[in-house]
Amino acid sequence: MKALLVDNRSSRPVMRVGDHPDPEPKKQELLVKIEATALNRADLLQKSGRYPPPEGASPILGLEMAGEVLETGADADRFQPGDRVFGLLPGGGYADYCTIHQNLAMKIPEALSYEEAAAVPEVFLTAWQALSWLGELKKQERVLIHAGASGVGTAAIQIARQIFDCRILTTAGREDKLERCKELGADLAVNYKKEEFDDLIEQAEGADSVDLIVDFVGAPYWKSNLRLLAMDGRLVVLGLMGGASVDRISLVPLLRKRLTIRGSTLRNRSKKYKVELTESFRQNVLKKIESGEIRPVIDSIYDWSEVEKAHQKMAENRNIGKIILTGM
Amino acid sequence: MKALLVDNRSSRPVMRVGDHPDPEPKKQELLVKIEATALNRADLLQKSGRYPPPEGASPILGLEMAGEVLETGADADRFQPGDRVFGLLPGGGYADYCTIHQNLAMKIPEALSYEEAAAVPEVFLTAWQALSWLGELKKQERVLIHAGASGVGTAAIQIARQIFDCRILTTAGREDKLERCKELGADLAVNYKKEEFDDLIEQAEGADSVDLIVDFVGAPYWKSNLRLLAMDGRLVVLGLMGGASVDRISLVPLLRKRLTIRGSTLRNRSKKYKVELTESFRQNVLKKIESGEIRPVIDSIYDWSEVEKAHQKMAENRNIGKIILTGM
Repeated sequence: MKALLVDNRSSRPVMRVGDHPDPEPKKQELLVKIEATALNRADLLQKSGRYPPPEGASPILGLEMAGEVLETGADADRFQPGDRVFGLLPGGGYADYCTIHQNLAMKIPEALSYEEAAAVPEVFLTAWQALSWLGELKKQERVLIHAGASGVGTAAIQIARQIFDCRILTTAGREDKLERCKELGADLAVNYKKEEFDDLIEQAEGADSVDLIVDFVGAPYWKSNLRLLAMDGRLVVLGLMGGASVDRISLVPLLRKRLTIRGSTLRNRSKKYKVELTESFRQNVLKKIESGEIRPVIDSIYDWSEVEKAHQKMAENRNIGKIILTGM
Repeated sequence: MKALLVDNRSSRPVMRVGDHPDPEPKKQELLVKIEATALNRADLLQKSGRYPPPEGASPILGLEMAGEVLETGADADRFQPGDRVFGLLPGGGYADYCTIHQNLAMKIPEALSYEEAAAVPEVFLTAWQALSWLGELKKQERVLIHAGASGVGTAAIQIARQIFDCRILTTAGREDKLERCKELGADLAVNYKKEEFDDLIEQAEGADSVDLIVDFVGAPYWKSNLRLLAMDGRLVVLGLMGGASVDRISLVPLLRKRLTIRGSTLRNRSKKYKVELTESFRQNVLKKIESGEIRPVIDSIYDWSEVEKAHQKMAENRNIGKIILTGM
């Protein structure tokens, strides 16, 4: 089959279409013709050699896909050839075909195109995991979602709005991003480039008032995050985009406010975990996507021959929501 | 009634017997003649003025008691006068009498004296909370319990041994303390004054090998704790006895190992929480105390007229297990 492979021959790695062996469905697996995939930050890291794929995973980039079932492996009785499916991959999305365990695949809701469906798995499963499983969000709590216009941010805002009926605070770095966050359900959107988000949120919401924070920035936000958290507050750290090293921290808020701080990534989780998360997502979130109350947020759609442009856009943080590749 | 009150007239506060109004049982409460209480570090802090009692709590020191029910308030139908009971108090243990909500009281197992029963509530409920509720300990995991010879430490080692069948690592600062930890069920006991506990544990158990750490020390142990934790490891911080300020931390292990870090205290929790914790303890741990498989660990028993000596012993870390006051 054709696939986008990393070409390392020059000093700056680039993606090129090349040949790769066809995948074959094993027991309980589906062989899928990929119609669309979506970009994730991990793709950029992996391309640059800084994020090797987990053991056993395809070396091809691409952590999610939407496509059509071509063939079912032994005991893969939940789907039939012709079914439209989407789901998480440990790798292999930038290709003509992939295999996926049937319990990681979900039927694409009728109202969604392949491009829309490809925008769902990573960010919505990550957001659901962060809010519900890791963050133990309860109805009507107050939640702060950093990078609100990112893929995970736009998904988390919608889940917090439609499922948990939360008071939603968010940060982003451009006026149109703030606007989009509000359209999706944020009550307060702070431009972190113009304002100190912690001062502004404390002023608007009160001291020690945020029940859950979802963060991708890490070190630069550490102190502000701990400052804002309420009694029994939770901080879920999904990325360290701003750095990992914090100078001089105090553990007093940890005890005084009985905080929980969790780091997590989705990709290196076990298949069992991903299956359970997919099932939990299917039961709790998918119906809101079917009904149109929650919508995948697509920034742009590129033909896979233009993958370098797509990567560039993500590297420069210019996107609001997901960047899709299609035309395999 | 008589009670031990804090005398602040000199520069160093001391305890003196004085008069205090008799408590009266409200709805669902029991009036108890206290036969024994036990010391907690919070007592020393409160005595020195650095730990004001939570709102609504008795200003008298003493976070636990064992005694005899004298009278039951309205709707307090779970106990009768004459019953031997023990349980957590928000304050008020250093006194002749106290009141306690019936759902916070437990019947004293027949084999236990009042002194033994008074050694149970704070440390065993704290240890159960830390291991099971906050630490989500699973059977046969590897757990590191710092300050293994402390009250909570001796309780946690026994619970980890008898209920979770764990591999148990512990630290303490004196040879007889290490010996006692091993008698109670620790597999490895490290003298932190003589050895670097992280080097020694990593050598003995492997890198990234500890599933759960229960810590009271805080800042000085922060880096070593994070170093030792396994994938999906949990750190439960119950105290900051060594300090709260950590120079320069890296958040990389938090993400790479998907860690959970929790701070917690028991005293300032809601009554509802304490009732649920007491019930969970009653269902899961009390039968092991009734059967003698788990034993309260008593360091020493003082008449309450000797409370200053008892406080001094705790302040100097000379105790192994609980220090009991009796003779009210």
